[in-house]
Amino acid sequence: MRFATIEDGTRDGRLHLVSRDNSLCAPSRNAVNLQGALEEWDAMEPKLRIEYDLLNAGDGIPFDPSRALAPLPRAWQWLDGSAYDSHVELMQTAFNLAPIDNGGRPLMYQGLSDRFYSSVANVRLPSEDDGIDFEGEFGIILDAVQMGTNAVQAREHIRIIVQINDWSLRGLGAVEMKTGFGWISAKPACSMAPVAVTPDELGPYWRDARVDLALALDWNGARFGAANGYSMSAGFDELIAHAAYSRDLVAGTVLGSGTVSNVNFREIGSSCIAERRAIEILDFGTPKTEFMKFGDRIRMEATLPDGTPLFGAIDQQVVRG
Amino acid sequence: MRFATIEDGTRDGRLHLVSRDNSLCAPSRNAVNLQGALEEWDAMEPKLRIEYDLLNAGDGIPFDPSRALAPLPRAWQWLDGSAYDSHVELMQTAFNLAPIDNGGRPLMYQGLSDRFYSSVANVRLPSEDDGIDFEGEFGIILDAVQMGTNAVQAREHIRIIVQINDWSLRGLGAVEMKTGFGWISAKPACSMAPVAVTPDELGPYWRDARVDLALALDWNGARFGAANGYSMSAGFDELIAHAAYSRDLVAGTVLGSGTVSNVNFREIGSSCIAERRAIEILDFGTPKTEFMKFGDRIRMEATLPDGTPLFGAIDQQVVRG
Repeated sequence: MRFATIEDGTRDGRLHLVSRDNSLCAPSRNAVNLQGALEEWDAMEPKLRIEYDLLNAGDGIPFDPSRALAPLPRAWQWLDGSAYDSHVELMQTAFNLAPIDNGGRPLMYQGLSDRFYSSVANVRLPSEDDGIDFEGEFGIILDAVQMGTNAVQAREHIRIIVQINDWSLRGLGAVEMKTGFGWISAKPACSMAPVAVTPDELGPYWRDARVDLALALDWNGARFGAANGYSMSAGFDELIAHAAYSRDLVAGTVLGSGTVSNVNFREIGSSCIAERRAIEILDFGTPKTEFMKFGDRIRMEATLPDGTPLFGAIDQQVVRG
Repeated sequence: MRFATIEDGTRDGRLHLVSRDNSLCAPSRNAVNLQGALEEWDAMEPKLRIEYDLLNAGDGIPFDPSRALAPLPRAWQWLDGSAYDSHVELMQTAFNLAPIDNGGRPLMYQGLSDRFYSSVANVRLPSEDDGIDFEGEFGIILDAVQMGTNAVQAREHIRIIVQINDWSLRGLGAVEMKTGFGWISAKPACSMAPVAVTPDELGPYWRDARVDLALALDWNGARFGAANGYSMSAGFDELIAHAAYSRDLVAGTVLGSGTVSNVNFREIGSSCIAERRAIEILDFGTPKTEFMKFGDRIRMEATLPDGTPLFGAIDQQVVRG
């Protein structure tokens, strides 16, 4: 199934089913919003599947992604992993830092969740001097997960897959990281692509609790990277088990992969500017690529390999706050 | 004004006014829950004040704190400072670590906000081996704060003051801190005392955006500490300005002071076990006090200096998860 959340004046928006080719949509007759659907997913899913079949038979109205909010315009929890070792190792090497060790467990931080920007929203930020950067990621949305859930059990709770831009302010990130407290100023609200999908929509490209698809990024119209999501050192199932060690995860928890990155970053490019700058430091001794300026656009989209649209595109501008 | 949230089967509970001596309560006729009240505080406050006056004239039912949920049973955002330098410096010294520097800005982390335990809830945690600890804190709850709000403007947004127990797993805390990503496993859900109050309820003991009251902690019935809340190196106003640098703060954001600590910790005791252990390391070369065991109780209460109840007590047990 595919979902979008259309603006209706409420904070959580109105849940719509979206057809398999992203051309049509229809408001759900069974669930008002995605948060509500996730809170009673087992009872809701068969009803939504009937609606989805009707929609795919043509019973809908044209879907306009520019009218969509984030699939979850706000969530009770946003946890972001950093599961691509090629990214983590590259950053540490470029900045002459020791390898990061979380006692063998995945890397993860807690981010702000009370707002996810739509795919077309202008993103207001305070200053170009902060090192404005994008981070292309995949994410999952869970139904309720009990404390102590293991990675095998965790797979049953992966209900929705989304595509995320995790906005980052690099000038503040390194300073905050050194405190050990994680990021506050360096991690403003994230954005989500307009269409959220159930794992079966990916067919064979959802495997081992990972998204085996390329995430294409274009910065001001120029291709910046197209790394594949599969190479996570810990799959989403393991990220869930880690997150649930000492807490229940509320239905609607959003969990991110971290910046998508592959070992052949020199050929396929990067999913954030900081990674390209780290490569430049290794190659030239100094970074050459500057961070984003106000007015810059970033576009991100992962489709199926045959070009069939999936999440739709994030395509947005950063503006002076 | 004083508020409590009484269980009514909904996730956010039912907002009640509580009388000035915490003896009576009455369901609000104007606001269903505290989150709703905070979202339209300017319009709601005068109506609630009329209700509060009626209640203080005797028009209520007995208030039973054991029936109260956390004043905000869930929040869209929980940010916790670490504003008591005596605590931070003591911990760093005891563990031979360099001073923490956030570029001159306050220390703060983003915690899980989808659940705050009630003052009497049993707190389930996975293992005694994780170093189970309490942290006595004061907190504030905000109405909506725009990105870029400065510390002077911030004071107008401090609508509610609460008392918090920030549960912590110390065995995991140090490891997670070294990653720079902040805490996930080491920071389970927090608890709140039953009564939330407006700043005027503190009279002269709310000054400089700080709580000038002692927070008394009893661990299994024995006094553990009674540090005063005033000595924050950054007041709540400055914590707000820091938090709002690159994000809007949603109405209902909860902001914590960090473990209350005073420079004379040897006389007045500590608000968490980790701090006492740090003192023991300095004094004896090794910690002597063990962390909590399942079945242990922790009680925390700050009253006005004349003994008038304020937030009520947190008095709860930690149990096997």
